[in-house]
Amino acid sequence: MTTDKSLIDSALRGWKSNVERADKLFVDLSPEQLEQEVAPGKNRLIYLWGHLAAANDALLPLLGIRERLHPEFDGMFISNPDKSVPLTVSGESLKAAWQEINQKLWEGFSSFSALDWADRHTAVSEEDFGREPHRNRFTVLLGRTTHLAYHLGQAILARPKA
Amino acid sequence: MTTDKSLIDSALRGWKSNVERADKLFVDLSPEQLEQEVAPGKNRLIYLWGHLAAANDALLPLLGIRERLHPEFDGMFISNPDKSVPLTVSGESLKAAWQEINQKLWEGFSSFSALDWADRHTAVSEEDFGREPHRNRFTVLLGRTTHLAYHLGQAILARPKA
Repeated sequence: MTTDKSLIDSALRGWKSNVERADKLFVDLSPEQLEQEVAPGKNRLIYLWGHLAAANDALLPLLGIRERLHPEFDGMFISNPDKSVPLTVSGESLKAAWQEINQKLWEGFSSFSALDWADRHTAVSEEDFGREPHRNRFTVLLGRTTHLAYHLGQAILARPKA
Repeated sequence: MTTDKSLIDSALRGWKSNVERADKLFVDLSPEQLEQEVAPGKNRLIYLWGHLAAANDALLPLLGIRERLHPEFDGMFISNPDKSVPLTVSGESLKAAWQEINQKLWEGFSSFSALDWADRHTAVSEEDFGREPHRNRFTVLLGRTTHLAYHLGQAILARPKA
């Protein structure tokens, strides 16, 4: 394996393992469990899960993979805080969306060469990228992986006792 | 910048930005604030901070930078849960240790070439590394960055109101 392929392999493993941790945390929860707050007065599990699904969905166009699958998630899970707008998505439908989004992302990730990863993402102009070459796909991947871990650390606090 | 240098640059930026977030969260807290739990019955802020300091300290030998600065942290912050052993470290001394550990790590990180990052860390044998080439320094760096983010997501829950 070349050095750049090896570096990318590490990052993809990190992404995958955090998505799998999220799977374990969220996908088998009952509707009642998804209503739990991670701490008193803080976000509910359903909100965190939707927030992560929306963030992942937004990666599809940002990385140039495809248009969004669920732009309607943003109003419920990104631009408004938890409990401020009614959720029109159930745990079951969120699970299906979550899995489809991550599948499409993984297909896109798997198709990128090292040069693709080091190339600009779609929200930065060619001119700005010339000045700020770190605004590339790889930086986005790593940033979204830590964003995922950040909220997993919160979600685990509300994990139902075994 | 070559592709591999660009990939490493992204990862180092991610590390740095998460360490800086931890700085902002922890270093100015009073002893009383450090006693706060992130959620009822969960870890205190002082424990999370010490846990992150111990984890970072353990990176020094794992990445082949130098021997540990604070091996005594493990008993208080890694191998035992919060509130099970008395802490012999104050917020002030933890702050000094945290800063020194991160400074030494950063010096080490800055000295590594792309080949160094893709090379095995010190806890894997040459033979095992032949079979599992992802057990390299770069994987460790990314994994520790997400570990840091995971606990930052918890610590923020106890952030004192402005």
